Amino acid sequence: MACTALIVIDMVNTYEHEDALVDSVRTCLPGVETVLRRARADGSPVIYVNDNFGRWRSHHGEILQSALAGEHSELVKPIAPDEDSLFVVKARHSAFFETPLAYLLGQLGAERVALCGQVTEQCVLYSALDAYIRHLDVVVAADAVAHIDPGLAQAALRMMERNMSADIQRSREISFSGPPAR
Amino acid sequence: MACTALIVIDMVNTYEHEDALVDSVRTCLPGVETVLRRARADGSPVIYVNDNFGRWRSHHGEILQSALAGEHSELVKPIAPDEDSLFVVKARHSAFFETPLAYLLGQLGAERVALCGQVTEQCVLYSALDAYIRHLDVVVAADAVAHIDPGLAQAALRMMERNMSADIQRSREISFSGPPAR
Amino acid sequence: MACTALIVIDMVNTYEHEDALVDSVRTCLPGVETVLRRARADGSPVIYVNDNFGRWRSHHGEILQSALAGEHSELVKPIAPDEDSLFVVKARHSAFFETPLAYLLGQLGAERVALCGQVTEQCVLYSALDAYIRHLDVVVAADAVAHIDPGLAQAALRMMERNMSADIQRSREISFSGPPAR
Amino acid sequence: MACTALIVIDMVNTYEHEDALVDSVRTCLPGVETVLRRARADGSPVIYVNDNFGRWRSHHGEILQSALAGEHSELVKPIAPDEDSLFVVKARHSAFFETPLAYLLGQLGAERVALCGQVTEQCVLYSALDAYIRHLDVVVAADAVAHIDPGLAQAALRMMERNMSADIQRSREISFSGPPAR
Repeated sequence: MACTALIVIDMVNTYEHEDALVDSVRTCLPGVETVLRRARADGSPVIYVNDNFGRWRSHHGEILQSALAGEHSELVKPIAPDEDSLFVVKARHSAFFETPLAYLLGQLGAERVALCGQVTEQCVLYSALDAYIRHLDVVVAADAVAHIDPGLAQAALRMMERNMSADIQRSREISFSGPPAR
Repeated sequence: MACTALIVIDMVNTYEHEDALVDSVRTCLPGVETVLRRARADGSPVIYVNDNFGRWRSHHGEILQSALAGEHSELVKPIAPDEDSLFVVKARHSAFFETPLAYLLGQLGAERVALCGQVTEQCVLYSALDAYIRHLDVVVAADAVAHIDPGLAQAALRMMERNMSADIQRSREISFSGPPAR
Repeated sequence: MACTALIVIDMVNTYEHEDALVDSVRTCLPGVETVLRRARADGSPVIYVNDNFGRWRSHHGEILQSALAGEHSELVKPIAPDEDSLFVVKARHSAFFETPLAYLLGQLGAERVALCGQVTEQCVLYSALDAYIRHLDVVVAADAVAHIDPGLAQAALRMMERNMSADIQRSREISFSGPPAR
Repeated sequence: MACTALIVIDMVNTYEHEDALVDSVRTCLPGVETVLRRARADGSPVIYVNDNFGRWRSHHGEILQSALAGEHSELVKPIAPDEDSLFVVKARHSAFFETPLAYLLGQLGAERVALCGQVTEQCVLYSALDAYIRHLDVVVAADAVAHIDPGLAQAALRMMERNMSADIQRSREISFSGPPAR
């Protein structure tokens, strides 16, 4: 049976020179924790898709360590990957561009993705598009995404809803459908 | 030397059940004509990227004929491909998704794309993103793009300008840089 | 239900400076005719994937006309596309590289591809690989593929069989499974 | 200025049930060491592209640890990544399929790749094809690639040379062109 994968976008971050973003991340943090808890409780796949900040030598342990050693570890620690989390490194904005994410979702039998993370009007929007264009169903956890520009973030949510058939839901309302079939 | 390619998005259209769009297309038509004339005068490549409407048997001659036989041929005739136009068929929203467009631009030595056509807040936005993510420079002919939702179209232009480093210019101001080097 | 798509590779050809190839094509022509007849009789999708020879202005009607006007029209006429044939233009060797073929197969529900055409040790081999890597089942019509180098062609068939789990069958033995579900 | 990147394919391996391969790897190991030493001495990028064996939770440190803890650590230790090595995880056979390798090479300004590793007639061949199809120049270190089937390996080298314009050279003859320009 098809499953839903939770995609956590760019939440492992050192937040250097990102003041505009930090407040919004702080606000959405409980939402991210909620959706993480729900996906994990259901045994649904949780995939962190994260910039490598141009450091192709880094693996995700190092990316996580840098973020935990940064000045905003309080934004990283509560949502850190656990032992079961999957991790995909991305080089550019969309979670799908030149990454194995589409292949991995296919292997997991995931036909629906739940998106949370940052930035609503950039990587989240672009990843929603690239999911939709691949015929994946999209749900966005509206209280678990962070923005830089509030107006563009609102427009991005409307675009996802109207033009990408996305469901915009609260973290506590998103239903997961259990573990992958395999 | 690198050249600029003009990308004409989804302008070969039968406009069935597209009333909201038709008025906006009518308004932007002179802009599309202007940017087409300028690109052709400079010998820059002009690439029509167009839906095939699920008809994989159709080639672009047939797509053009259908559009010219439709009830809004007055929106198609003035901007129809000429003998030198290139034509790429797309299956989904972005001009780049599962098409040879990126490869073709590479062969032409085009490092900059000028976008016109429809719909500003959908295919134009998505194509701008997919160009930007591939490190192509983007210019959008603001008076040569048509929208369905005016508010989302404005937001899309701001997104392209702020987050994809796009230049938003009038058709008559866009500079082309002559024919491909080869 | 999943269907099998017949992929006809690079058979629409003017055969300029291709003497080594022409004899092999002549030999495999009855095999191509057989597999075409069988796929069409079963209502299975038939997809011609063909070089555009760098002529991005050409649509497939023009490519076909050029081939029929060439000096080896006798190699093209018997296997020409019919009204129901689908047509995908490729720019490079593999049928999948920067083309909508994978997307189109997904839309058709095709989980198995039957390959015929040319050149066994080049485009046919590469297309088999790109099908296999995408988890599509592959069958090669051994008497319906043409080669340039007989030794490399034999090696290519062994590679497809051993390393890409391809079935190597005679044209008249390949089973098709009827039309796409939709 | 364009640089050459050394691509080390699937050499971080536990070699479980791979007896046919182990002897060939042992034979090519000095060649891999030579080409690694030469690339590093010149400051050229060295990119390990390696299966993750379906373990999407693993990062490359863990993949390396497993390989060093396996029964053939003597085949892994001499060619292990160093602090400057880049690492790309692949899911399927080609180093380019659904990975950021092409993007990374573009960022490094690498227009030529030198291939070593395993298996000559499978991943090395497929990666050479995917490099060639992207207009990258290819050199294969003939004494630094390991095979399972000697006959198919010889055919694969001929295919790369004749049909993918690859240079087939000895490890000690391959010239690197220094570090990336940036």
